[in-house]
Amino acid sequence: MTVSKGLQVFPRTEYLRRLAAVKAEMVKRDIETLVVTFDRSINYLTGYTARSAYVPQALVVSVHEEEPSLILRLMDVPAGIHLTFLGRNKIIGYPESFVGNPEKDGYDAVIDFLQEAKLTDRGVGLEMGQLPARAAENFKKRLPGARFVDCTHVVTWIRVIKSDLEIALMKEAAAIADAGMLRAAEVIRPGVHEADAVAEILSTLARGANGKRGTGIANIFMCSSPRTGTSHIIWSDDIFRQGSQVNLELGGVRHTYTAAVMRTFSIGKPSDRLRRLHEAEVQGLEAALEKVRPGATCSDVAEAFNRTIGKSGFQKESRCGYGIGIDWNEAVTSLKEGDMTVLRPNMTFHLMLGNWIDEDFGYVLSETFRVTDSGADVLTRVPRQIFEI
Amino acid sequence: MTVSKGLQVFPRTEYLRRLAAVKAEMVKRDIETLVVTFDRSINYLTGYTARSAYVPQALVVSVHEEEPSLILRLMDVPAGIHLTFLGRNKIIGYPESFVGNPEKDGYDAVIDFLQEAKLTDRGVGLEMGQLPARAAENFKKRLPGARFVDCTHVVTWIRVIKSDLEIALMKEAAAIADAGMLRAAEVIRPGVHEADAVAEILSTLARGANGKRGTGIANIFMCSSPRTGTSHIIWSDDIFRQGSQVNLELGGVRHTYTAAVMRTFSIGKPSDRLRRLHEAEVQGLEAALEKVRPGATCSDVAEAFNRTIGKSGFQKESRCGYGIGIDWNEAVTSLKEGDMTVLRPNMTFHLMLGNWIDEDFGYVLSETFRVTDSGADVLTRVPRQIFEI
Repeated sequence: MTVSKGLQVFPRTEYLRRLAAVKAEMVKRDIETLVVTFDRSINYLTGYTARSAYVPQALVVSVHEEEPSLILRLMDVPAGIHLTFLGRNKIIGYPESFVGNPEKDGYDAVIDFLQEAKLTDRGVGLEMGQLPARAAENFKKRLPGARFVDCTHVVTWIRVIKSDLEIALMKEAAAIADAGMLRAAEVIRPGVHEADAVAEILSTLARGANGKRGTGIANIFMCSSPRTGTSHIIWSDDIFRQGSQVNLELGGVRHTYTAAVMRTFSIGKPSDRLRRLHEAEVQGLEAALEKVRPGATCSDVAEAFNRTIGKSGFQKESRCGYGIGIDWNEAVTSLKEGDMTVLRPNMTFHLMLGNWIDEDFGYVLSETFRVTDSGADVLTRVPRQIFEI
Repeated sequence: MTVSKGLQVFPRTEYLRRLAAVKAEMVKRDIETLVVTFDRSINYLTGYTARSAYVPQALVVSVHEEEPSLILRLMDVPAGIHLTFLGRNKIIGYPESFVGNPEKDGYDAVIDFLQEAKLTDRGVGLEMGQLPARAAENFKKRLPGARFVDCTHVVTWIRVIKSDLEIALMKEAAAIADAGMLRAAEVIRPGVHEADAVAEILSTLARGANGKRGTGIANIFMCSSPRTGTSHIIWSDDIFRQGSQVNLELGGVRHTYTAAVMRTFSIGKPSDRLRRLHEAEVQGLEAALEKVRPGATCSDVAEAFNRTIGKSGFQKESRCGYGIGIDWNEAVTSLKEGDMTVLRPNMTFHLMLGNWIDEDFGYVLSETFRVTDSGADVLTRVPRQIFEI
């Protein structure tokens, strides 16, 4: 009658280490309670991976307790018990009457929990980033005695530096991303439907690499001529054509840890312009990677790329990448000039050198790398070439 | 140098019809401007499908202009031009300096646009639902002269009733979902890795059905023993085992329109308990569908299901479904007792009869249906059986 614990992705000690880091930050911010609402943060601190964040849910961390409390819709409680390291008494379900109800929702259940646990007379940290405005107002209205502190990126900043266990998953994810890209080089052919090529790529991303299966599917961005100047679109309902260029971005996923890679394909001979841009970008990529070491900044890495491609007369408008980990983009660090985040060992980045130069012309190249004790360990390994079909 | 318009999924008249409905609601609410922030609403009103909503973006609808203005990150403007029916002067990019910047973000660009267009001295509707609290505060702080009206579900309620053009896509999506489920029945086998079966299912969902390819991949929820009491988890990193039950939920996608279906698989003979539950659920499903007609309520449908399975001694805690369309769940209607939404022709629902009875035992069955002039048209067509492997 009770669901068993599933195979845990990480040992309990790993979660306790993460929670200790969060609690240390809570003490610094003079709060005793932290309400974590971002699904990636909840995943990070508990192992919960169910895709239930379309309804409200929260993790309540108290400095006074070893394990936090996970508040979920009642129907998601068995998944919480099965997936997380938490004791079953730490997983609390709110009733179905809170779903699709304009009067009260799951955040009211979180507020009820805070009241009942008497956690509201001291400082309460709130992850506000993804919290809808109405929910934020409700917290303040229903808990007038609490002193709220915006803790939007507290957990995210801790996520930025990975443990060796997390790095192992990132490496597995990178190998899967590589396999997907190499499969793309086999199936992108003139006359083939883009969706049929995607079918093969998706299949490869699920089957995985080196005996490690994909445990999730990340976005696939496939932009063919005349759409190579666009960046975030998925495949079209059309076929590949002779003479077309195809920009492909995909990710491998291992237990939510994602590694991304981008490569450009040319069906037929690449134009001179494309070839010159490719050469400049590869040089820029190498220059950027050479800058990577503990103590350097995100800005240093971007600056090296920008300066190098500038020598060839190119420039890139968008940033050169961002921290990557659970479910792709970490959203606190950017590889761009002016981001003074200092690199530290086991930070991981998507060095994203997609360069959309004109409305109708863009090129992509990227790698996922890890900061080591002395430089960069590039996790993705696909040849840095224009794949000529 | 300029990107061409892509093949449009809908004719311009379809978008103008949708916008006219929105503007009529705006007049009712005494607002002249509506700021649409939910990516599904933006998609609905423009045809924009790029996956760029991880940064702020908004559509500004004015009652005084035929076409709304789409405010995107600069790098997403070419996708906006290519994908949408909008004139290129209606697509406004904000610079890269607004990305990854703690001081200002894309919503500031939206506020700048409202100020420059002098749209702030009358009522301004805001889709608050997904809007982060900080952004909502910023709107109020930076536009002190505006009278804000919460318009969270205005566009969503209009989306609920589909045009025949949308229904045609829902039917194509349903055929793809069916194909995915039938493929699952071929590849779920003891000893096979769950991920390898998912690889085949994903491939089928991309290749599509009847010559209509999948143009997106929706969530796949695959819950095998001992996890059949869970609802929103994806496949495990394990193999299927003799004697296991597998609950599968998947969706077909055509140009963001999604049809969902759920079926239960049994590797080996189903238990008596599973068989009895299945029989009760199929009867309940039929009773629910019989209730569907214009003028009946969502509550009527749920009540018919609940009463029918009750006769066999079962009950279901969660609601019996919800409106479905762009990107799956529409989030304003629920097939549950007490939801007095009146059914109207061309509403579409996921009649979701997943029933998680115990922590370690659940069963799934669902269909996507359309309300017709006189009853229900069930779009998904997979046999209503326990698939015995």
